[in-house]
Amino acid sequence: MTEIVKKDLLYKGKAKEMFTTNDPDTMWVHYMDQVTAFNGKKKVQMEGKGQTNCEISALIFKDLANHGIKNHFIKQIDSNNQLVKRVKIIPLETVVRNFASGSFEKKFAVKHLMKFDKPVQEFFYKSDELDDPFINDFQAEALNVATEGQMNKMRAIALKVNDRLKEIFSEMNIDLVDFKVEFGIDSDNELILADEISPDSCRLIDRDTKKSLDKDVFRKGLGALVPVYKELLGRLEKVEDVK
Amino acid sequence: MTEIVKKDLLYKGKAKEMFTTNDPDTMWVHYMDQVTAFNGKKKVQMEGKGQTNCEISALIFKDLANHGIKNHFIKQIDSNNQLVKRVKIIPLETVVRNFASGSFEKKFAVKHLMKFDKPVQEFFYKSDELDDPFINDFQAEALNVATEGQMNKMRAIALKVNDRLKEIFSEMNIDLVDFKVEFGIDSDNELILADEISPDSCRLIDRDTKKSLDKDVFRKGLGALVPVYKELLGRLEKVEDVK
Ligand SMILES: Nc1ncnc2c1ncn2[C@@H]1O[C@H](COP(=O)(O)OP(=O)(O)O)[C@@H](O)[C@H]1O
Ligand SMILES: Nc1ncnc2c1ncn2[C@@H]1O[C@H](COP(=O)(O)OP(=O)(O)O)[C@@H](O)[C@H]1O
Ligand SMILES: [Mg+2]
Ligand SMILES: [Mg+2]
Repeated sequence: MTEIVKKDLLYKGKAKEMFTTNDPDTMWVHYMDQVTAFNGKKKVQMEGKGQTNCEISALIFKDLANHGIKNHFIKQIDSNNQLVKRVKIIPLETVVRNFASGSFEKKFAVKHLMKFDKPVQEFFYKSDELDDPFINDFQAEALNVATEGQMNKMRAIALKVNDRLKEIFSEMNIDLVDFKVEFGIDSDNELILADEISPDSCRLIDRDTKKSLDKDVFRKGLGALVPVYKELLGRLEKVEDVK
Repeated sequence: MTEIVKKDLLYKGKAKEMFTTNDPDTMWVHYMDQVTAFNGKKKVQMEGKGQTNCEISALIFKDLANHGIKNHFIKQIDSNNQLVKRVKIIPLETVVRNFASGSFEKKFAVKHLMKFDKPVQEFFYKSDELDDPFINDFQAEALNVATEGQMNKMRAIALKVNDRLKEIFSEMNIDLVDFKVEFGIDSDNELILADEISPDSCRLIDRDTKKSLDKDVFRKGLGALVPVYKELLGRLEKVEDVK
């Protein structure tokens, strides 16, 4: 395999810069030292944030692959850069909830962290202009955002991710409240897990202190974010079978 | 059958008063001369409005029963009162859309009246306090609002209603843009169509003039509402096989 060389900036999102490489199927992802919330309305630069997310996401994606969940991760380049398979992202955020929080709690006025008997699954349409609206299968099909088959597949994979993440976080003494993932179509036309899994995209609660170990610390202004992310990475690195 | 006698006001909604009767399985529905929009924020009294809606709903429910769609309608008492089977309402508004309008158009910023290849189906959680939020199956199950089996059944019946309504309105030179229905569980534990089907709960466009023949006239302040509803009732009464 020839060495992969970073080329042009293809897309700069709110957390990552995506670069093309000399291989059309490989992307170079740079995790930025930036955190945003409320669709970019709140935005702060934070040293060390890119690195922790890059490393957490790498560890989790490697573990998921080891547990039979195909994903875009190829390898870590350095502390805040990684290589991934280039995919065509399906513009849906696939959400799984184990406990009520965030938009669910607000919309339905239920008790914070009410436990669900079975995971609640939702899709949000990734559209900054439309403010990422909550969407159902009929709407997504009507808008040509995804097919019914793709949505069923994304839901099924997301449930497997949920099962494995709950195991990992449980070993870290953490409850997985909810998380979002993204999927894309790779060059073999296969639908695989992509983007990132990190404290930016999960809600995590320490079982003893009941404190958030995720982006809610930033959303709610609960204190410094990077130390929390570093604490999380430290615990993750200690999990026996995650490496 | 002993004569049905109106008893106590059980529930006063935004359009109808529901009375108990001497028969525990029968409700007396009074259609009020009142129209509301935006969850009751806009409200006006209008003579003749209750009557037209009561008569339109009666004609449609009778026709749907004739076409195999079980529903709560028993009989018309007078111009703005009818008897219906008492049900336990499932607090979901079941929406079917043939063309983009209303909240769909707004949320997804699509062209007004964009035609859908297949009907788009949605549920909204009937809750004045929560402002009738859009809800998916997982959420409705988690909140004990409805079971998956009930939602599948409601969707299936709503599609049949759509097919028949499109036929009826087509004979009236009208496009059925969208509509909402409600379902309930009757004393035999059967899930049946309930509430009303009227220009309050449908969006209807005249194929020639492209004018609204429904509550949008009121929502958008396009002129007097009752003459429009009367025009609609007049056309409905002329449809050959609706009686
Ligand atoms: N494997 C991949 N191939 C192509 N695009 C990807 C891949 N993984 C993630 N992306 C996309 O990269 C973009 C940058 O990520 P991010 O900064 O998180 O963006 P956003 O602001 O949309 O959240 C996102 O649009 C994401 O969907
Ligand atoms: N057959 C029925 N049995 C019991 N309740 C019914 C039946 N049909 C409709 N309802 C309920 O009657 C109430 C009054 O109707 P309406 O004035 O339209 O109320 P709303 O303000 O909730 O729209 C609604 O809550 C509706 O769900
Ligand atoms: Mg992102
Ligand atoms: Mg009503």
